[in-house]
Amino acid sequence: MKTSIKTVRISVIGFGNVGGGVAEVIKRKREEIARKYGLNIKIVGIADLKGVVVDENGLSEEAIMGLHTGDKKRGKMADMTTVGVIKEIEHEVMVEATPTNVEDGEPGLTHIITALESGRHVVTSNKGPLALEYKRLMELAAKREKELRFEATVGGAMPIISLVRENLAGNGILSITGILNGTCNYILTRMAEEGLPYEHVLKEAQEIGIAEADPSKDVEGIDTAVKLVILANSIFGRNATCKDVEVTGITEITPDALQLADDAGYVIKLIGEVDREGCLKVAPRLVPQEDPLNVGGTMNVATIKTDLAGDITVIGKGAGPIEAASAILSDIISIYRCR
Amino acid sequence: MKTSIKTVRISVIGFGNVGGGVAEVIKRKREEIARKYGLNIKIVGIADLKGVVVDENGLSEEAIMGLHTGDKKRGKMADMTTVGVIKEIEHEVMVEATPTNVEDGEPGLTHIITALESGRHVVTSNKGPLALEYKRLMELAAKREKELRFEATVGGAMPIISLVRENLAGNGILSITGILNGTCNYILTRMAEEGLPYEHVLKEAQEIGIAEADPSKDVEGIDTAVKLVILANSIFGRNATCKDVEVTGITEITPDALQLADDAGYVIKLIGEVDREGCLKVAPRLVPQEDPLNVGGTMNVATIKTDLAGDITVIGKGAGPIEAASAILSDIISIYRCR
Repeated sequence: MKTSIKTVRISVIGFGNVGGGVAEVIKRKREEIARKYGLNIKIVGIADLKGVVVDENGLSEEAIMGLHTGDKKRGKMADMTTVGVIKEIEHEVMVEATPTNVEDGEPGLTHIITALESGRHVVTSNKGPLALEYKRLMELAAKREKELRFEATVGGAMPIISLVRENLAGNGILSITGILNGTCNYILTRMAEEGLPYEHVLKEAQEIGIAEADPSKDVEGIDTAVKLVILANSIFGRNATCKDVEVTGITEITPDALQLADDAGYVIKLIGEVDREGCLKVAPRLVPQEDPLNVGGTMNVATIKTDLAGDITVIGKGAGPIEAASAILSDIISIYRCR
Repeated sequence: MKTSIKTVRISVIGFGNVGGGVAEVIKRKREEIARKYGLNIKIVGIADLKGVVVDENGLSEEAIMGLHTGDKKRGKMADMTTVGVIKEIEHEVMVEATPTNVEDGEPGLTHIITALESGRHVVTSNKGPLALEYKRLMELAAKREKELRFEATVGGAMPIISLVRENLAGNGILSITGILNGTCNYILTRMAEEGLPYEHVLKEAQEIGIAEADPSKDVEGIDTAVKLVILANSIFGRNATCKDVEVTGITEITPDALQLADDAGYVIKLIGEVDREGCLKVAPRLVPQEDPLNVGGTMNVATIKTDLAGDITVIGKGAGPIEAASAILSDIISIYRCR
């Protein structure tokens, strides 16, 4: 319980599912966060392709909804660019929630660099900039004495980066092995349960919104590889990019292969693995049915092998706007735990 | 990477398995901790029924081994009481690792109170004082502006208290359900796998050191209840003691019951459950085979239901001297993360 309240002004850059989740969660949790952590979190700017809204006293529900629905009158759009919001509106934390682009990291990369150079902390769910320019961004954050946190990039609401760095502090990390893509896990789980072919289950997953219209990034293992690169860089001190990952996806897996695995007491899962010897690999692998990595549906899981604590496994929802917002909120709170 | 090094002097009170593990881990990790966290951890005093050794410059390996083996000459025992070490030897953190006593919490309770009143932070693996006097101890720590951390008391190396407080900050916690006693889990797992009766498997567990000669605290659910009380108080803000827990152990479970459960797709596990509606209960329960709570052997597991992040499950080794020392070390590091 805190007695003095500190105001934390944030901007939300990118107002799709995740950005919208952040606004929703902050609205829902405002009083609780003030009471438990002594923080009064105010959203002072939101920028998106739909437009920009700003209010240095904290945006009203109406302005936020106006942007959300694209109702320009209701929202009183500001005549500013996204970079203008990051640079010119006074705030402490920039939340970067634009979509991941693993080609050149933009526009997230520019947003993060601009925010750090403007003296803002950054919390992001955007994998692209971290997978491409981890070292450069961390050096910039250190130079500006600002934090750059990114728990939401790997495993959604499932804590993994902060778990290793904080809860397992003092442990040497030998390896991290896990299922980091819920779409692939859903497809393989359904194929195994129902004996259905890949194409059939993919279509089903697309219909219920678990797979995208273009599912290639998920099913070809690229999304898992990007997350693995973030773990390699942030936990194993590597300077890797996606090119360093050996990647095989799930598109060639057949119901027969899953049945054979089942007969032998195994399941097939798309597993990402990074270790301190240099392994950086995404591939379908046999997992014993009783192994903690055998989780079904869209769940994510990671087993962290350590030199003191043994194996620690964490399981959680890898996706979803409120889940990602939960990780972003915890990152924001953690910036102020020590300040 | 830290450039300035801060010396942290610690005392280790209770030098059995856990205390010995702490000394071993600090020896093994000294350089890594200095490099990564900027902390030079020195053990300046150890007290145990076997005697007391102190050295304000940091105890030598030989002195520590002398106490360990009871070799008084080698160890140069000091003419001091345990409370004297806590009070009079200058140090920053007292590690309390005497055995749990759930009757009156002693001697741990006196050690913790003395340390806080002497201006020391406290890190403990001792469940008794926290299960009996949580509120009083926390109020004393707050008054003295010292930390009292106790990750090692629940789930061994498996992070749970810090996971909820830090990694899931911002989340409302609805319930925590888990297997918190490795001995019971081992017995039930073996009974189910081999179709053997309880008494037979208990004897086997005693022979290989997984169950104690007097196994009652484990098999009657008392150890699980004590851990649940610590979770109830630290996470749900309750002021509970063991008397508030409804407890049923595993002594009445038969191989037939396990077989019937298996036929229906379930396992039977000794489950502790605490929720924010007031539930505080330890009992054997049916767990679906595919549930993340279905972990075998001596593993511990907890599923944390949250309002934002959904269900987060963590699995790890619940016991072992190095595992407990890992949790203690992370607690010590975390005290200085913000200081």
